[in-house]
Amino acid sequence: MLISLSLERLIQALNRFPGIGRKTAQRLAWFLVSQDKSFALELAETIRNTVESFTSCSLCNMLSESDPCPICTDRERLDALLCVVENTADIQIIENMNDFKGRYFVLGHLLSPIDGYGPEQIRSAGLLESIERVHPVEVILALKPSPEGEATIHYLSEILQDKGVRVTRLSTGIPFGGDLEYSSMLTLSNAWKRRYPA
Amino acid sequence: MLISLSLERLIQALNRFPGIGRKTAQRLAWFLVSQDKSFALELAETIRNTVESFTSCSLCNMLSESDPCPICTDRERLDALLCVVENTADIQIIENMNDFKGRYFVLGHLLSPIDGYGPEQIRSAGLLESIERVHPVEVILALKPSPEGEATIHYLSEILQDKGVRVTRLSTGIPFGGDLEYSSMLTLSNAWKRRYPA
Repeated sequence: MLISLSLERLIQALNRFPGIGRKTAQRLAWFLVSQDKSFALELAETIRNTVESFTSCSLCNMLSESDPCPICTDRERLDALLCVVENTADIQIIENMNDFKGRYFVLGHLLSPIDGYGPEQIRSAGLLESIERVHPVEVILALKPSPEGEATIHYLSEILQDKGVRVTRLSTGIPFGGDLEYSSMLTLSNAWKRRYPA
Repeated sequence: MLISLSLERLIQALNRFPGIGRKTAQRLAWFLVSQDKSFALELAETIRNTVESFTSCSLCNMLSESDPCPICTDRERLDALLCVVENTADIQIIENMNDFKGRYFVLGHLLSPIDGYGPEQIRSAGLLESIERVHPVEVILALKPSPEGEATIHYLSEILQDKGVRVTRLSTGIPFGGDLEYSSMLTLSNAWKRRYPA
């Protein structure tokens, strides 16, 4: 016997989050209905307010509460460095590092022609416009070293070749705390080739 | 730089779910603001509707959309068997097993005097009332074999001793698919003592 259709709908809604399986969705749903109602009602309100206040920055595509976003309008940030990321969450990660004071450009997706993400979908024209507007010295492609990330890095460095900018990517290798034994052959052979003076 | 205060509030709200750490909360929040808004708005609405429609059954304490709940009012269910569970989520798990056709009683919490959960907080008076109303032949204490669960099983079997009902608990032992090697000494020695003809 299914206890409640309405709860089942809530479970299915929560199950649509990436990485939240059916069991976790059930646990979250039961938590919501078991607690003091004010928690759930506040959460619902916070979700509504947050998503309604967010928009894409028309300059860098970052999700933000203002357009242009606070980073694009910040005169203290350096125009010389432009960091290209997959999505806005990556910007928060890099900001938390507290090391980078340049500007950003959000692709929104990595190149993956098989899934329908070609040069246009990853906003490469917008990136070229950004470069013409900001005139950076260096474009840092802070993309993950997955097959799609590598394809995107390859494609972007090709189209940026004659734009008079230095194009760099993040270092690849064995992560700190990682194990040689548990590294993939690809990671290991890359780390071997890219070995540097100790 | 913190990208958004409103997003930070959403992350903190999601972080209050049990088992959802800060990193997962961040991932969920970014997912909510990155997707088509309709998903997040529907989710907020579903949360609100669901929690507002739920109440506790005045007979068995199960969270339900009606009072008394559909199980208490179902004439097909057997009065002879009363299953005692910690919370309503456990009822759904037992119902999914599709094997039990008796009635339920929800304690709401396990006995844990150190955390302020004494006999009154675990609704033992309500359980005795249920037993007097339903007149079951057997009371199944379907509680987990944790220290709190064991204390509760011990306490409830004491107070039910002279009520003319058979009091049982779920079998304990090594789970199917489990390993002797990875079983705790407690589980192993319990399974050893409770060994049964193969």
